[in-house]
Amino acid sequence: MKHVLSVLVNNHAGVLSRVSGLFSRRGFNIESLAVGTTDNQDISRMTIVVDGDEYTVDQVQKQLAKLIDVIKVVQLDTDNSVSRELAIIKVNADTKKRSEIMQVAEVFRANIIDISKTTLTIEVSGSGKKVAAMQEMLRPFGILEDARTGLISLERGVKTICDE
Amino acid sequence: MKHVLSVLVNNHAGVLSRVSGLFSRRGFNIESLAVGTTDNQDISRMTIVVDGDEYTVDQVQKQLAKLIDVIKVVQLDTDNSVSRELAIIKVNADTKKRSEIMQVAEVFRANIIDISKTTLTIEVSGSGKKVAAMQEMLRPFGILEDARTGLISLERGVKTICDE
Repeated sequence: MKHVLSVLVNNHAGVLSRVSGLFSRRGFNIESLAVGTTDNQDISRMTIVVDGDEYTVDQVQKQLAKLIDVIKVVQLDTDNSVSRELAIIKVNADTKKRSEIMQVAEVFRANIIDISKTTLTIEVSGSGKKVAAMQEMLRPFGILEDARTGLISLERGVKTICDE
Repeated sequence: MKHVLSVLVNNHAGVLSRVSGLFSRRGFNIESLAVGTTDNQDISRMTIVVDGDEYTVDQVQKQLAKLIDVIKVVQLDTDNSVSRELAIIKVNADTKKRSEIMQVAEVFRANIIDISKTTLTIEVSGSGKKVAAMQEMLRPFGILEDARTGLISLERGVKTICDE
């Protein structure tokens, strides 16, 4: 089962290495990880998606909380959170195929962010499923390369990570 | 100066730990990191933004390329790439302030993805500068919490990371 851990950390060199080292030592493959500074430049927020049983993820959560420079760790309830990820996909698109691809982009409310004689580059944000569905639609044209951020996630409503 | 490294890796446990360990040993703070699978599920792509002089970043690039499970490392030319990041921002918004905040969101082509009696949660994608500008506009209302993905980036035009 997939679990989403949201981790506040001090923005110091080494903290990412400690966090990823903990997962690696347990043989846990991180499915996705996104890290960026918060509105407070000294604090970063990592969103980590892992696949594992409840017990093991609970253990990892406890051990994460003990690491130097880790301020807070919560496990987000996916039913009660808003989650998004972002992908940029470069796809083969000669002049004949271009309008067909642009229609697909429109349906997914995706944006064309680059064009060349033979390619289109498309930005799409949404749930992991939405991004996957769009990739599926683009695959027949030929995906040349793509980059995805990991998932980011906040709890719905007023509550924040600091209230947990 | 900021440098963007795009790294293709085998999607194995431990690779993130090795990559971040390399930066950490050199005392390099990673400014942002995004990692997600590519269209090939066995391969992930990391986009790493680091601040440093050209010489040091070149050295890091070379050392990254030597790590187990690292397939390819390129330094993207920021003038010739398309780059995006994603943020979710939860902001104080009572009924009086709501429409004002929704106007800000509209200008930035951001989406409201959650609402409560006293908050709005907004999703915005764009360049780092755009996300920062929107945060600036929202700060007076009171940012309760936020999460940002790192930057993701692809070279413009036909060329891909595999052609480098």
